[in-house]
Amino acid sequence: MTVSTVVFDAYGTLYDVQSVAAITNETFPGNGELITQLWRIKQLEYTWLRSVMRRYENFETVTRQSLVYTLKALGLSYDDALLARVIQQYDRLSLYPDVVPTLQALPDRKRAILSNGSPAMLTNLMHHSGLNDLIDVAISVDLRKTFKPAPEVYALIESELGALPAETLFVTSNPWDVAGAKAFGLKTAWIERVTPDVMAASCADKAQPSPLVMFQAIRMQMDELDLHPDYRIRGLSELPGLLRP
Amino acid sequence: MTVSTVVFDAYGTLYDVQSVAAITNETFPGNGELITQLWRIKQLEYTWLRSVMRRYENFETVTRQSLVYTLKALGLSYDDALLARVIQQYDRLSLYPDVVPTLQALPDRKRAILSNGSPAMLTNLMHHSGLNDLIDVAISVDLRKTFKPAPEVYALIESELGALPAETLFVTSNPWDVAGAKAFGLKTAWIERVTPDVMAASCADKAQPSPLVMFQAIRMQMDELDLHPDYRIRGLSELPGLLRP
Repeated sequence: MTVSTVVFDAYGTLYDVQSVAAITNETFPGNGELITQLWRIKQLEYTWLRSVMRRYENFETVTRQSLVYTLKALGLSYDDALLARVIQQYDRLSLYPDVVPTLQALPDRKRAILSNGSPAMLTNLMHHSGLNDLIDVAISVDLRKTFKPAPEVYALIESELGALPAETLFVTSNPWDVAGAKAFGLKTAWIERVTPDVMAASCADKAQPSPLVMFQAIRMQMDELDLHPDYRIRGLSELPGLLRP
Repeated sequence: MTVSTVVFDAYGTLYDVQSVAAITNETFPGNGELITQLWRIKQLEYTWLRSVMRRYENFETVTRQSLVYTLKALGLSYDDALLARVIQQYDRLSLYPDVVPTLQALPDRKRAILSNGSPAMLTNLMHHSGLNDLIDVAISVDLRKTFKPAPEVYALIESELGALPAETLFVTSNPWDVAGAKAFGLKTAWIERVTPDVMAASCADKAQPSPLVMFQAIRMQMDELDLHPDYRIRGLSELPGLLRP
């Protein structure tokens, strides 16, 4: 595979969206897991709905509104200070443990991020997690005022980086992001964080799966959209081997 | 309110999407509720994702693919005959009990359906439920090869029926459908089938809500998209009173 440029999704791929659980648990004891999952489910729904309606607002707005929806749905009270404190965690998400060694093992390729996050959110994330030296450019969908998986968003890779689709590997753990990148014509590597065996075992004989398992069942299995990743990997650490000539 | 035309959403508004539960329970004992909810959650996700990607396939395809996703995610085996038998139920969904009396009470207005369903699915639904005499026209999004809440879909009301947005009342139980119709400029009535009190009570002190409660929490509370319904009603039976001069 001749690849000059490796482009990473941010949320769920480099950064663990589940790492807001500490703050949701602390703020709403007993409801943390449910809030964490509903929040992420609605956050992505809102990106898709706003894209379809052509009513773009940036990812900060979507992140706040999806949290408000979640707290209202659960009948929990909140004020602006509480919202700000919980949302702040989105600028401080944890990196998956294999991110830094993987990026360090790809010094001869252009390394970029293409994310739904607003420019300010991406700046804060990269600064807090110390990725500034390991990522050449972080591209926000905000340049096109729509969200993934809209084709014009994936087109930013060529327009911003000068990298042709055929020489770009797009890496994501989000199945719908694989579909969007693939539909646009990029090479794709999907990080399968919850294998079918593990998924089926989590659901087996459980009439009531936990909110986390519901999230995994809704969002972490390969989608049925007639679009398939070029590579399935279990973690970022498999990337350098994949790219070796 | 001067309204010449009342346009109804079909799935979840006139027809109870939960009425597939009998067949999912019978086919997969113990997993029926989880399948029913995941299936519906993914079905709508796929309409949005295909709209954003501009990779339209009709609602029959989306309905089958979302069921396949669901069964794979749960590690359940199936064949074409089983899929066909379960999906067939989508042509035989139950009407909510107040549909027929409500439609009968609106004889002096044009009564239409605007639905994600394919033309064939809508024909089958109307025929099976006996709505042919009570609905003047059923419009499918298939005419525009995209799904709700895309604005060009709501524009079909004027192009197909000659009804101006200002004289049209759009009725739906789906919060995202309220947002789409409202963004387009229609008057909207939202059927609030799960009130905030009931929703909060269902979630209170439950670390693990049932799949049905998860569905209600994800999809049945008013969305935070800066768009609000003109009317909130608890059931279709409130419509005739709303429209009386």
